[in-house]
Amino acid sequence: MAAELDRKSLTIAVDAMSGDKGFAEAIEGCSLAIEQGLQARLLLVGREDDLQSATSHKNLAGHPVDIVHADGIVAMDEKPARALRRCRDSSMWAAINSVKQGQTAGVVSCGNTGALMAMARLQLRMIEGVHRPAVSALWPTVNGHAVVLDVGANVEVDAEQLVEFAIMGEAYFRALTGKDRPAVGLLNVGEEDLKGNTLIRNAATILREADPEMNFIGFVEGNDISGGGIDVVVTDGFTGNIALKTAEGTARMIGAWVKEALTANLMAKAGAALMMPSLKSLRTKMDPSSVNGAPLLGLGGLVVKSHGGAEANGIASALLRTESLAAHPFLDEIASTLTKVRERAESVQVEDETSSVAAE
Amino acid sequence: MAAELDRKSLTIAVDAMSGDKGFAEAIEGCSLAIEQGLQARLLLVGREDDLQSATSHKNLAGHPVDIVHADGIVAMDEKPARALRRCRDSSMWAAINSVKQGQTAGVVSCGNTGALMAMARLQLRMIEGVHRPAVSALWPTVNGHAVVLDVGANVEVDAEQLVEFAIMGEAYFRALTGKDRPAVGLLNVGEEDLKGNTLIRNAATILREADPEMNFIGFVEGNDISGGGIDVVVTDGFTGNIALKTAEGTARMIGAWVKEALTANLMAKAGAALMMPSLKSLRTKMDPSSVNGAPLLGLGGLVVKSHGGAEANGIASALLRTESLAAHPFLDEIASTLTKVRERAESVQVEDETSSVAAE
Repeated sequence: MAAELDRKSLTIAVDAMSGDKGFAEAIEGCSLAIEQGLQARLLLVGREDDLQSATSHKNLAGHPVDIVHADGIVAMDEKPARALRRCRDSSMWAAINSVKQGQTAGVVSCGNTGALMAMARLQLRMIEGVHRPAVSALWPTVNGHAVVLDVGANVEVDAEQLVEFAIMGEAYFRALTGKDRPAVGLLNVGEEDLKGNTLIRNAATILREADPEMNFIGFVEGNDISGGGIDVVVTDGFTGNIALKTAEGTARMIGAWVKEALTANLMAKAGAALMMPSLKSLRTKMDPSSVNGAPLLGLGGLVVKSHGGAEANGIASALLRTESLAAHPFLDEIASTLTKVRERAESVQVEDETSSVAAE
Repeated sequence: MAAELDRKSLTIAVDAMSGDKGFAEAIEGCSLAIEQGLQARLLLVGREDDLQSATSHKNLAGHPVDIVHADGIVAMDEKPARALRRCRDSSMWAAINSVKQGQTAGVVSCGNTGALMAMARLQLRMIEGVHRPAVSALWPTVNGHAVVLDVGANVEVDAEQLVEFAIMGEAYFRALTGKDRPAVGLLNVGEEDLKGNTLIRNAATILREADPEMNFIGFVEGNDISGGGIDVVVTDGFTGNIALKTAEGTARMIGAWVKEALTANLMAKAGAALMMPSLKSLRTKMDPSSVNGAPLLGLGGLVVKSHGGAEANGIASALLRTESLAAHPFLDEIASTLTKVRERAESVQVEDETSSVAAE
C-alpha cells in the first residue's frame, strides 16, 4: 500500500455558502476542525465579502487559509439538472472545480446532494466503469463504526453495482481506519446462501470468486449492521436509505424515552444529576454530528457531502474525515481493484433466472 | 361495521409444543394471559402427558381448558416442504386443523414460521386473490404502535401485492385498535410522488384511485415508522425485514449504552437507584415481548405467529392479541375490501416502463 501524504501539503476546499446554516457556521466548523488537529490548508469558496471575516477568526488567523470568490449559491431545493445549467457561478461549482484543477485534494459541501452529485460527475467524471456515485453512511456500532452503502443514490441496482459498492466501501473503510482487510457483508433477509433474490446471490458469487483478496463474509442481516462484527455493509440505495432512516427514527424515539425517564420527577432528576458524567458519554455516542461527512464514492475526485443542517461540530468532523481520505491513495486503490475484479468476473458463472427465497 | 363477538364464546388453539422454550413456557403463557384478562376458552394441542399438568396449574384450573393430543413436534429448523409431508401428526398441524374444522377461532404458535405458513396455506387456503400470506410487525412509535408489513414472507412483490398488504394492514390495525380510518403509508426513499421505482408508484396510484375509503397518506420514509403519524406502513418483505431487524439492532445497541451509563461508576449507580420507577417504565417501553404475536395475513383463518424464543409474557401478549382479532370480523372485511378494490383497479392507468428516482 502506498504511503500516506503529509497532511500539511494538502489543501481542502470548503463550499462555504451551501447548506442550511450559511457561511458563518462553515467558518466556525473550519475553526473547530483546526482546534481538533486539522493540518491541511483551507480554500474557502464563496462570497468574498462574507468570507473576509474568516481570516481574522480565532483559529483561522494563524492557519493557511485562502479565499476564492464565487457569487452564486445553489438553493437546497434546486433541481440537479437546473443547477447544472444555471449555477456555474456558484460556490459549489467553483469548489468542485478546484479539485478538477488539482488545486485542492478534496472538497466538503453541506449543499443539495443531487446538485453536488450532478456537478461532481460532470467535472470530475466517474472512475472507469463505475455506473453512478454511491452515498455511504458511517454507522455507529457497539464497538466503533461500520460503513453502509449505498444509502440513497441508486434505487435500482444490478449485481455488478453491488460488487462496485463492496470494493469502494472496502477501500473507504481501509482509508478511514487503517484496517488492512475489513470484513465486508451483503445485506439480506437471512444468512444462508440461498436467501434473497438472484441479484444479491449473483453479487455474492462474483465477490467470492473474483475478489479472493477481499474478506467477504457473505450475507448479513439488519441487526448485524450495529452488531460490530462487520466493517462494510453493502446494499442497494432503496434498502440502504430506508434502513438508515429507520435506525435514525429508532434512535430518536429511544432518546426521547430516555430523556423522559431522566426528567420524569424530582427523584429522577436528582438521579440524573449524579450520573452526569456517564450520561455525557452516552450523549456523545448518540450525537449524529460525529459521523457527519460521507464521500460520494466512484467519482474521479474526492467530494465529501456534509449534512445540509450540519452545525460547526458536524462540519469539523467532515473536514477531518476529508483530510484523512485525501492523505490516502484510496481512489487509486478503488480503480485498480475494480479493473482486476472485472477481468476475473468475466469467467464467473451466475444465475440467469430470477427467483427469490423469503426470510422465514 | 359488524359487532364484535363475545370473547367467552370463542376458543383459541395453542400449539403448545413448538417454539424454543417448550410446553411448560406455553402453559405459563396461558396462565399469564388469563391473569391479564383473557376470556376465551383454550385448546392446548400437544402431548397429552406433558399437557395434563396444565389442568391443575394455578390460573388454568378455574378456566375452560381442553387438551387435544398430538404426538409430533415440528423442529425449528425443519424445511417447510418436508414439514408438510412428514409432520401431519404434529401439534402445529393439529392446532391449525382445529381452525379449519371451526372448532377454534384462531391459533397461536411459537413454531417454525416457514412450516407454519405452509401448513396454514394448505389447510386454511388463502383469501380469494391474495398471492401469499404477509407477515406483519407491531412497531413501537412515540405515541403507540404502527403495523408494518410485509416483514419477510414476500421478498419480491408486484404493485398488486403492495395494495393487498395495505388493505390487510388497514383491517388488522382497525381490529387491534378500533380506529375507524387508520393512516396508511407506502415506505419509500422520499415523500414526493416521483420518488422510488415504478412498482411503488403504481401501488400508490391504485390505492389512491381504487380505494377512496382508505386514509392513504402517500409515501413515507424510514424515520416516519416510529414517528407516530402513520398507523400502517406498507413495504415489500425484503425492505420490511431489513428495516425491522435494523431497528431491533439499533434498539439493542442503545439499550446497552444506556445500561453502561447507568452502571459506569458508583455515582451513576446511586443515580440509577433514585430513578428506578422511571427506568422501569423505560424498560417496559423497550420490552419486545409486548409486541409479540403477529397474524399471518391473507389466510382464510386466523393464525398468529409468536416469536420462537418467546417467554411466558410474550406468549400471553400473543394470546390476548389473538383473542381481540378473533372477536373482530376483520378477515371478512379484508375479503370484501379486496374484491371491491380489485374491480375498481381494472380501470386505473399505471406506468408501463420501469424507471426509478433516487433519494436525494
